[in-house]
Amino acid sequence: MSLPLHGSNPDYLYAYYNLIKPHQVIDFSVNTNPLGMPEALVKSWPDLLEKVVDYPDPHNKELLESLSGKLEINQSHLLLGNGAAELISLLAFYLREKPVLIIQPTFSEYERMCEAHDCKISYFTVQPEESICLRTFEEAVKTQEAVFFCNPNNPTGKHIEKAQLEAMARICLKYNCLFIVDEAFYDFLIDYDYSIELYKEYSNLVFLRSLTKIYAIAGLRLGYLVAQPDFILELKKYLPHWHINAIADSAGKICLKADQFVLDTQTYILKEREFMHQALEELSFKMIQSDVNYYLIRDYLTHDIQPLFIYLLKSGIVLRHTVNFPGLEGKWLRVAIKTEQENRLLLEALKKWRKVN
Amino acid sequence: MSLPLHGSNPDYLYAYYNLIKPHQVIDFSVNTNPLGMPEALVKSWPDLLEKVVDYPDPHNKELLESLSGKLEINQSHLLLGNGAAELISLLAFYLREKPVLIIQPTFSEYERMCEAHDCKISYFTVQPEESICLRTFEEAVKTQEAVFFCNPNNPTGKHIEKAQLEAMARICLKYNCLFIVDEAFYDFLIDYDYSIELYKEYSNLVFLRSLTKIYAIAGLRLGYLVAQPDFILELKKYLPHWHINAIADSAGKICLKADQFVLDTQTYILKEREFMHQALEELSFKMIQSDVNYYLIRDYLTHDIQPLFIYLLKSGIVLRHTVNFPGLEGKWLRVAIKTEQENRLLLEALKKWRKVN
Repeated sequence: MSLPLHGSNPDYLYAYYNLIKPHQVIDFSVNTNPLGMPEALVKSWPDLLEKVVDYPDPHNKELLESLSGKLEINQSHLLLGNGAAELISLLAFYLREKPVLIIQPTFSEYERMCEAHDCKISYFTVQPEESICLRTFEEAVKTQEAVFFCNPNNPTGKHIEKAQLEAMARICLKYNCLFIVDEAFYDFLIDYDYSIELYKEYSNLVFLRSLTKIYAIAGLRLGYLVAQPDFILELKKYLPHWHINAIADSAGKICLKADQFVLDTQTYILKEREFMHQALEELSFKMIQSDVNYYLIRDYLTHDIQPLFIYLLKSGIVLRHTVNFPGLEGKWLRVAIKTEQENRLLLEALKKWRKVN
Repeated sequence: MSLPLHGSNPDYLYAYYNLIKPHQVIDFSVNTNPLGMPEALVKSWPDLLEKVVDYPDPHNKELLESLSGKLEINQSHLLLGNGAAELISLLAFYLREKPVLIIQPTFSEYERMCEAHDCKISYFTVQPEESICLRTFEEAVKTQEAVFFCNPNNPTGKHIEKAQLEAMARICLKYNCLFIVDEAFYDFLIDYDYSIELYKEYSNLVFLRSLTKIYAIAGLRLGYLVAQPDFILELKKYLPHWHINAIADSAGKICLKADQFVLDTQTYILKEREFMHQALEELSFKMIQSDVNYYLIRDYLTHDIQPLFIYLLKSGIVLRHTVNFPGLEGKWLRVAIKTEQENRLLLEALKKWRKVN
């Protein structure tokens, strides 16, 4: 049994630490929408049963039409994935044995899949509160085939803006280097700046997106990629037939219509994040300014956050450790913004902890 | 628009032939269980909604336990896939640029994925009513890295028995060649001979299985592979995280308990297949003796089956063309066994056709 490398599925975490899992557990390690899925999907659920029997549409015609319409991006620039994870795996396969740069700390799947495909991995580490120095970035990019960059970043919650992203894309282009930007959490930003439009000008740009976070459909698996049509065609031929299951295909179409739900989520996240920031500072926990639905915390009073992590686990509160995030090395914990009630329960537990520690 | 290379999703077929799709269509091109899915899955559907929100278990612990228990095969020999199609794609990746032999006519995904991965493909063609000559097979295998063999075969419906399969496995082993046996339709056989047990003796054997045909859950995607543990581990590292969606994971557990449903299906299929055989012969259609839930037919009176195919499409009856099956070259049509009522409607349409042709 090894330490789980992702949030969610806390059973494995309790088993790893040999702890009895309390009957009630609040999982702050999974950073999907705390408001749950769109109501329209819940209402449609009985009708989706009929989609189980037959094969999914292998071309996902209607879903791609919806997505293309919503994004105002031609279908030839779009590729769907069985979760963004399938697309990351596909990109790593495409880049096999090549030199790639991963901007750390970040989502661990880039590294895991690039390792599987024998990429020569280099790291460009940016501390949670630092910004990216373009000159150092250029030095690091020179010999690379591709750069993986998560924006807004998981686990820091930091978002860099379009101008800075464009500067990075320009540097990558100069060295004929793919610039893979994972925007899995962009929908949680209160004022997204349509960085994605840069795909029109930078042929080396690849955007990854996910529908599973904002619409809370992580169980169904659905992501997509935006890139140049020839690159899409090259990747597509390696994808298994019917790789998007029929429930994800149908749910995707329903979710993409839920515009008000997304706006409500953004407002809700902002309000709760600001509330938590103040409350945590008052309890002497440092919280990194985040732009999205999760944030990093550390304890101002100690460097060792492990006892708190275990204490919370025992109290039925699961945070996300950062042991496998280079640049964080376990000194921080990642916390999702959950419902108001759940966030308050976390604060209660932290207050209790402060009293005895 | 190109001719669809698989059954199911008849919209694409009507579009290809520029035909108006009738309001009511019976799709004989999809060869999943005509009895539909197990009742227990239908009943559980409302409860599965709660699985949508959170990430699936990335280790599919409970599903693997169920599967391992049912098959009496240790979990270390099992690998799940997002449909057997994902596993075929993974095997083709593993075999990239290597020489592989495909026993034809057969399921077209072996070829499609092996082509994508630049395998050097050879074909070993067995006519629908021929048996495999082991001497010729040995000649063909000598220089191969792997052999793809579908048993019972899709589209012929032919099943070869354990002794013959073992002889083939032995030949492959002699030349250090993987023998990949796709048993996607084995559950429809009335007396399956547990060929799968050969995995214990032949380290070069890889069995592919599917849960989507017998349990009619093609929309959900779920398959598995049985092989040696070291081979499983080698393949596993390339699979994307959370590649089995949570609904497939849960549905799989429910379906694996439906033993009586499988037995009822086998009896039903046998009865309908025998009925159809006699009725088709009476109408001067040749039907290949099939062991499973689909069969090939051709017209004793003409070599050109295309006019019949189009006539049936216009009548709202979709059969599966065989244009992309080397060895069949479109002279046959594949017909799924559907419900009693649907099968009778097919016979009615064929009678009508006979009257005017």
